[in-house]
Amino acid sequence: MSGSIAFVDGALLPRAEATVSIDDAAVRYGAACFETMRATNARVFRLAAHLDRLHAGLEAMGVQPPPAATLEAAVAATLEANALTEARIRLSVSAGRMTGPDLSAAGAPSVVVIADPVSTEPPPPLALAVASIRIDAGRPLAFAKTAQYLGYLLARAEARAAGADDALLLNTRGEVCETSAANLFAVRDGRLLTPPLAAGPLPGVTRSVILEIAAAIGLVAEERSLTPADLATAEEVFVTNSIVGTQPVTSVTDGDRTLWAASAPGAITADLGGEYARLVIAESGGGESNG
Amino acid sequence: MSGSIAFVDGALLPRAEATVSIDDAAVRYGAACFETMRATNARVFRLAAHLDRLHAGLEAMGVQPPPAATLEAAVAATLEANALTEARIRLSVSAGRMTGPDLSAAGAPSVVVIADPVSTEPPPPLALAVASIRIDAGRPLAFAKTAQYLGYLLARAEARAAGADDALLLNTRGEVCETSAANLFAVRDGRLLTPPLAAGPLPGVTRSVILEIAAAIGLVAEERSLTPADLATAEEVFVTNSIVGTQPVTSVTDGDRTLWAASAPGAITADLGGEYARLVIAESGGGESNG
Repeated sequence: MSGSIAFVDGALLPRAEATVSIDDAAVRYGAACFETMRATNARVFRLAAHLDRLHAGLEAMGVQPPPAATLEAAVAATLEANALTEARIRLSVSAGRMTGPDLSAAGAPSVVVIADPVSTEPPPPLALAVASIRIDAGRPLAFAKTAQYLGYLLARAEARAAGADDALLLNTRGEVCETSAANLFAVRDGRLLTPPLAAGPLPGVTRSVILEIAAAIGLVAEERSLTPADLATAEEVFVTNSIVGTQPVTSVTDGDRTLWAASAPGAITADLGGEYARLVIAESGGGESNG
Repeated sequence: MSGSIAFVDGALLPRAEATVSIDDAAVRYGAACFETMRATNARVFRLAAHLDRLHAGLEAMGVQPPPAATLEAAVAATLEANALTEARIRLSVSAGRMTGPDLSAAGAPSVVVIADPVSTEPPPPLALAVASIRIDAGRPLAFAKTAQYLGYLLARAEARAAGADDALLLNTRGEVCETSAANLFAVRDGRLLTPPLAAGPLPGVTRSVILEIAAAIGLVAEERSLTPADLATAEEVFVTNSIVGTQPVTSVTDGDRTLWAASAPGAITADLGGEYARLVIAESGGGESNG
C-alpha cells in the first residue's frame, strides 16, 4: 500500500501524477541521495541524523543541500497530506537537472518525499542467503545512501529466487558487510559484533542507535571484521534499519550450505529490540521537536 | 544545446515537460540501462550493437526488454521530431515502476529518448588526470551501461577541478580501466593496446569497432592489462566512444606528476580515426537499414 500524496519540489500532488524531469540527475545517472525514515506518532525518529547523512552525501556531490528546515517541512507536509502518523518515509534529493555529465553545471536539486503506511507489528524473523554480488567498500560516497542501488536490488532478487527473505552481502574482500536494506549484528560469547564502516556497510542511523543502546545497558560491543565463518559460531544474528528497528535472523545460507541457524530469536536481540522500541516511543512522545 | 523534443513511453513532447514517475526504477535506484549513440545522415551507427548491449543489461535485471523494432522506431521518431541528422542520441530504459526494492514486482519499463545536435568537427585532444575513484571490475552488470554512474561523474568533476579535460579511472587493482565516458587505447612499439574487459571498462561499441579496424588494416592489437607505468612508455594514447569516435590524448597526469605527454596526436591514432570516420560514412550512406 502506498501513500497517495507525494511532495515534489514544493508541491503536494497525487503520487500517480508525481514526476521528475527526464534530465534530472537521478533519472540520468542515479545521482541522488535518499533517506528512508520511520515516523511514530507523526514524529520522525532521529530525523536530524538522517538529514546530516543526506547533507554530507549531497555536499560530496558538489550539490548545495536544501536547508534542513525546508526538508523537515517537506516531510511534515507529506505526512499530514497522507494523514499518516505511523509511516515509512522516503526523502530523496538529486544532484539537479543535467543535460551532460558535468555536476558543476547541474540545476537545482529535485526534492521528492513519499510516505507509506507501515505495520506496527514486530517484523518476522529473516532467512538470509549470501549473495554472489560483492560490495566495494571503497565505492564513492560509501558513507551516504545514494541511488547507486542496483547491486542491492539484484542481490535481493537473487536471494528471494533462492527462497530466502533477503541477501547477505559480503564485500570484495569476503567480509560480512550488510543485507540489501539493513545492517547486520551478531552476538557471540555474549558480545555484540557488527562490521566496521571500513568493511563497506551503509552507516545506518539505527546501527548507531543500537551501539548507543549497547553502551547504555553495559553490553560489550565491537565493530570488527566478520567472515561468514565467524557468523557460524554466533549465538544470535539480527539486522537493523530505520523501518524495522531490529529484526531477528533465523538462518544464513550460502548456496546449499547452512552457515548458521537458530530455532528462535535470541535473548539479546529481544532485549535490544525492546530498548530500541522504548527509545522510539520516548523520543516520539514528548512535546518538543525531534529535528 | 539540447534537442527540444523528447520521446517518453511512446509520446513525443517538449523536453522541458518530459518527465518520468517518481516511482520509476531509474529515479529511485538508478536501475536503468542506457545507450549513447551517434547519428550521421540520420542513421545511427551500429544501432544493433547498442540495442544488443541494452537488451543484455535489462535481461540481467530481470526486465523484459522492449522489442528492438520498438526502440529503433523511438529513436527514428526522436531524430525526425528534432529535425536532426547529425546527433547525439540517448536511449534509456528503466527497470519499471517500483514502490519497493523488488525487481520482480516492477511495472513496465520507461523508455526515454533524447537527441541533441552534435559537432561534426574532429574533437580536440584531451588532457587526462588519474582519478582517486577506482572502478570495481566485478561490479554488477559491468557488461552493460547502467545509470549507476555517480562514480564517473565524481571522477570527471575531480579531473576538471584539477584542470584536466577528463578522468582516467583505474580499477581497484590499480590497472588502467577507462575514462569517465570513453575507452582508452595506447600504441606502444607500433602495437595497439587496450585494457581487457576483465579490467572493468564498459565494453564500448566503438572500442569493438576500433579492434575490427585494426584487424582489417593489419595493425597488431592486444587486449591486455595496463598499468599507469605502462602508459608512460606509450607512443600514442587515445580514447574512443560513440560520440567522438576517436579522440587523441595529449597528456596523462597523476596529481602533480605527468605520466605521459605528447606534443601532437600520433600517426596511428590519426589513421584509426580516419578509418573509423570512413566506416561511419559508408554505413550511413547506403540505402539499407543499419538496424
